[in-house]
Amino acid sequence: MRLSRAFQPMLKETPAEAQIVSHRLMLRAGLVRQTASGIYAWLPAGLRVLNNIARIVREEQDRIGAQEVLMPTLQSAELWKRSGRYDAYGPEMLRIRDRHERDLLYGPTNEEMITDLFGGAVKSYRELPQTLYHVQWKFRDEIRPRFGVMRGREFLMKDAYSFDSSYEGAVASYRRQMLAYLRSFQRMGVRAVPMVADTGPIGGDLSHEFLILAPTGESGVFYDASLEEQDWLAQSVDLDDEASLEAFFGRVTGSYAATDEMHDATKWETVPAERRREGRGIEVGHIFYFGTKYTESMGISVSGADGAPFFPQMGSYGVGISRLVGAIIEASHDDAGIIWPEQVAPWRAAILNLKPGDQATDAICETLYASAPDALVYDDRADRAGVKFNDADLMGHPLQLIVGPRGAAAGRVEVKRRATGERSEMSLDEALALIASGT
Amino acid sequence: MRLSRAFQPMLKETPAEAQIVSHRLMLRAGLVRQTASGIYAWLPAGLRVLNNIARIVREEQDRIGAQEVLMPTLQSAELWKRSGRYDAYGPEMLRIRDRHERDLLYGPTNEEMITDLFGGAVKSYRELPQTLYHVQWKFRDEIRPRFGVMRGREFLMKDAYSFDSSYEGAVASYRRQMLAYLRSFQRMGVRAVPMVADTGPIGGDLSHEFLILAPTGESGVFYDASLEEQDWLAQSVDLDDEASLEAFFGRVTGSYAATDEMHDATKWETVPAERRREGRGIEVGHIFYFGTKYTESMGISVSGADGAPFFPQMGSYGVGISRLVGAIIEASHDDAGIIWPEQVAPWRAAILNLKPGDQATDAICETLYASAPDALVYDDRADRAGVKFNDADLMGHPLQLIVGPRGAAAGRVEVKRRATGERSEMSLDEALALIASGT
Repeated sequence: MRLSRAFQPMLKETPAEAQIVSHRLMLRAGLVRQTASGIYAWLPAGLRVLNNIARIVREEQDRIGAQEVLMPTLQSAELWKRSGRYDAYGPEMLRIRDRHERDLLYGPTNEEMITDLFGGAVKSYRELPQTLYHVQWKFRDEIRPRFGVMRGREFLMKDAYSFDSSYEGAVASYRRQMLAYLRSFQRMGVRAVPMVADTGPIGGDLSHEFLILAPTGESGVFYDASLEEQDWLAQSVDLDDEASLEAFFGRVTGSYAATDEMHDATKWETVPAERRREGRGIEVGHIFYFGTKYTESMGISVSGADGAPFFPQMGSYGVGISRLVGAIIEASHDDAGIIWPEQVAPWRAAILNLKPGDQATDAICETLYASAPDALVYDDRADRAGVKFNDADLMGHPLQLIVGPRGAAAGRVEVKRRATGERSEMSLDEALALIASGT
Repeated sequence: MRLSRAFQPMLKETPAEAQIVSHRLMLRAGLVRQTASGIYAWLPAGLRVLNNIARIVREEQDRIGAQEVLMPTLQSAELWKRSGRYDAYGPEMLRIRDRHERDLLYGPTNEEMITDLFGGAVKSYRELPQTLYHVQWKFRDEIRPRFGVMRGREFLMKDAYSFDSSYEGAVASYRRQMLAYLRSFQRMGVRAVPMVADTGPIGGDLSHEFLILAPTGESGVFYDASLEEQDWLAQSVDLDDEASLEAFFGRVTGSYAATDEMHDATKWETVPAERRREGRGIEVGHIFYFGTKYTESMGISVSGADGAPFFPQMGSYGVGISRLVGAIIEASHDDAGIIWPEQVAPWRAAILNLKPGDQATDAICETLYASAPDALVYDDRADRAGVKFNDADLMGHPLQLIVGPRGAAAGRVEVKRRATGERSEMSLDEALALIASGT
C-alpha cells in the first residue's frame, strides 16, 4: 500500500474520549472509527489485523476437525423461547420487531441456533462427534460501552459448539479446544493464560477463561510462571487419542492459575515463590462444557447404538476476535505506539522514503515495494522524515526499511526492528531477502 | 472433507416451500438452512461457495485500487437523518431502538456511513481519488421473502464507493468498476450482461445493472450476442489512462443491451437479427454514478487546488454475494443437481469410494484424498454406489473420481466431468495430476 494514496487517517492529538491506551492507539493509528456508541467501522489497517487474527483462529479450529458454518446475525425470538432464555436474558439482548410484528433479536451468542441446526441434520450417534464453528458479528447492548473495541456493542466473535455421544467424548472435544486456543494465542504473539472459571450450576472443572496479561486488565490474576513458559506449538498431541489429550490437559491444569474471583490462597501457597506471578488480565476467550442443557431443553435427540434416543453432550468455545485487536495492543505497545507481533501485523514492513523525488532513493524504495506490494506499506508521502518515523512507530510495523539519499547512493537500506529498536544497515539484496523471509 | 464425518445434510425429498430450482437445490444439497423468514444459515458447503465468490470480488476490487474496510451492520438513525433518507426509506428498513431509546437501523446500504467516514479522514483534493469497499451483511425487510437466498432479508453484499475531484474522474472510477465487474462474473464462470439502468433524477448514462441469464430471471432482457462473446479477462486496459478506459467502455456500451423496463424497440431493430438475444435475467450487480448527492446533503467537502472547498463526486457499486450463489445455480444446473463452475465450486473434486472396506479401493481413495484434503470431498460413507453417484451429481462437484474394487485392482480411477457427463479412465498418477492441475 502506498501511503500517499491510502485511506489511512492518523490523528495527531490524543482523542479525549479514549480512556485506555489501546483505544487511543487504535484511533490515532487509523485502525477504527466509532460510528455510534460502542459500534465501530474498521479501516483498512484495522481490518487487516482483524482478518489475521480470524485466520489464525480458523486454521486452529480446522486443525482439530471443527467445521465452519455461518449463522445469521438476526435470530427469531421463537428459538430462544424454546430454550427458555428469551425471558431470562437481560437488557443486553437487542430485541427487534420486524414489519410483520414478529420478534427478532440480534444474536449475542448462538447456542440455540446451532442446536436447532444440528437437530435438523444429525439423526444418529454414528454421525458424532461434530464440532461446528462460525465467525460472525454479535451484539450486546452494553449499558456503558467503553474502551473502544474492548467493550463495544457490535463485536466479532468465533464461537464453536461441540456435540458428543458421551461425557468422555465431550471432555475430549473440550481438551482439543484447549489445545487449539493455546496454539491460536501463541501464534498471535501473545500469551493467554487459561484460568479455571466458574461453571455455575453445572459444576465440574470444565470451564476456562483465557486471559492476556496486561496492566489494564479487568481481572486480577494469579498463576504459575510455567504456564507462560510452555511452547504449545511444539507439543505433540494426538487429537484422536484420549490418553494423549488427557496427558496434554494435565500439563495445562497441573499448574496453578486463577482470577481473583476464583483465587484459592491455600493452593497458591503451594506454588514455589519464585514461580508465582500476579498481575492483571484481559479475557479474550472462554471455553465451557455444559452437557445436555440445550439439547434437552430444546428436545434435540439422536438415536443411540441401541436404537434409543439420547441427548448429545455439548460444549461452547468463544474467542473475542475484535476484542483481541485491542487486547494485543494493551499487551504490546510503548510510548511511541503499537508494537505488532509479526503474525497479526497489518503489514510485514514499512518502507520509509526519506526524500521522495530523489532518483536513487525512489528507485530503491520502488524495488523494495515491488517485491511484495500486498505485504508492505510504502510511505511515499511528501512529508518530513520525522513525521514518517513517528507514524511508522505509531502504526507498529514489525520492520521499518529506511531509505534516504545518502544510503541510497551507496545502495544501502537501514532496518529498524520496532520491538527492540535495534537498527542495522544492509544491502538492497539483503533487505529484499529480509522482506521475503519476513523475520 | 470426509463425508462420513461432515456436517453435510442432504434432503431426499424436494422441500415444499421452495418454488425455484436454486432454492430447492440449495436445500437438497445442504448449502443453507432457513432459520427465520428470509434469513439463512450457511452450512459448510454453502459457505465455501460464498467465500469463493467473495474472494473473486475482493481480488478484482483490489486490482482496480479499491481499498477494503468493514463497516458495522447497525447504523445510527442520526446519520440517515443528515442525508434525509431516514424518513424517505420505506418499511424495508429495519428500525431498531436500543436500551437507551436511541434509534438504530440495520444497514440496507452504506452511502451515508461511508460519506461520513470519508469526510472524517480526507481533507484535500490531493488525497483523491479514493474507492472504498466492504463485504458485509445487510438487511432489507422484504414484505414477502422468497426464492431462498435470491430474495432473502439478511444478505451479503459487496458495496464500493468512489470519491473523485471531478466528473471526469468519477467517470474513470465508474469505468474501472465496469471492468472489475465483468472480470469478476467471468471468473465465476457465468456471463452477466451489463444493461443500461434507470438513473432516476440524476440522468446521464452512468448506471448499469448486471444480469445473469437464466430462465427464472425476474426481468426480460434484450442484448447483442457480442456481449456474451467477449473475453473481458483478455482485454488489456490501462487503469490509469482515461483514454484506455474510455475505449474499453465503448466496447461494452457499443452493443445493445437492455432490460424490458428500458427496452427501445427502434434501437433493437438496428441489431443484426442473428445477433439478437432475448431471454430473462437475474440482477446480481448494479453500478451507479450519483455525483454530489450525499457529499452535498451531508455537508462533506474537501479543499481544492485553489484552496476553496468542493463536494467530491461519488458513485456506488454493489454485488449481491449471497444472491449470486442462487443465481449461479439458476444458470448452471440440470435435472440431477447443481453444476458448479470450477472457480466457485466448494470442492474441486469428489472421490467416490464404491466399496469402503475393500483394501485396494480404500488405499487408492486415501492416496487421492491425501494429495489435497482441503480441496476434495471424500465420500467414504457406508452407502450404496447409487446413493454416492446421486449425491455427487446433486452437489455439483466439477470432477468425480470414482474408485471401485475392479478398477482399484488394476490401479485405475474413473473420472466423470459433471458439466459434460464425459467419463474417462486413468491411472492413479494421472488422477493425482488432474487433482493438482484442477482442470
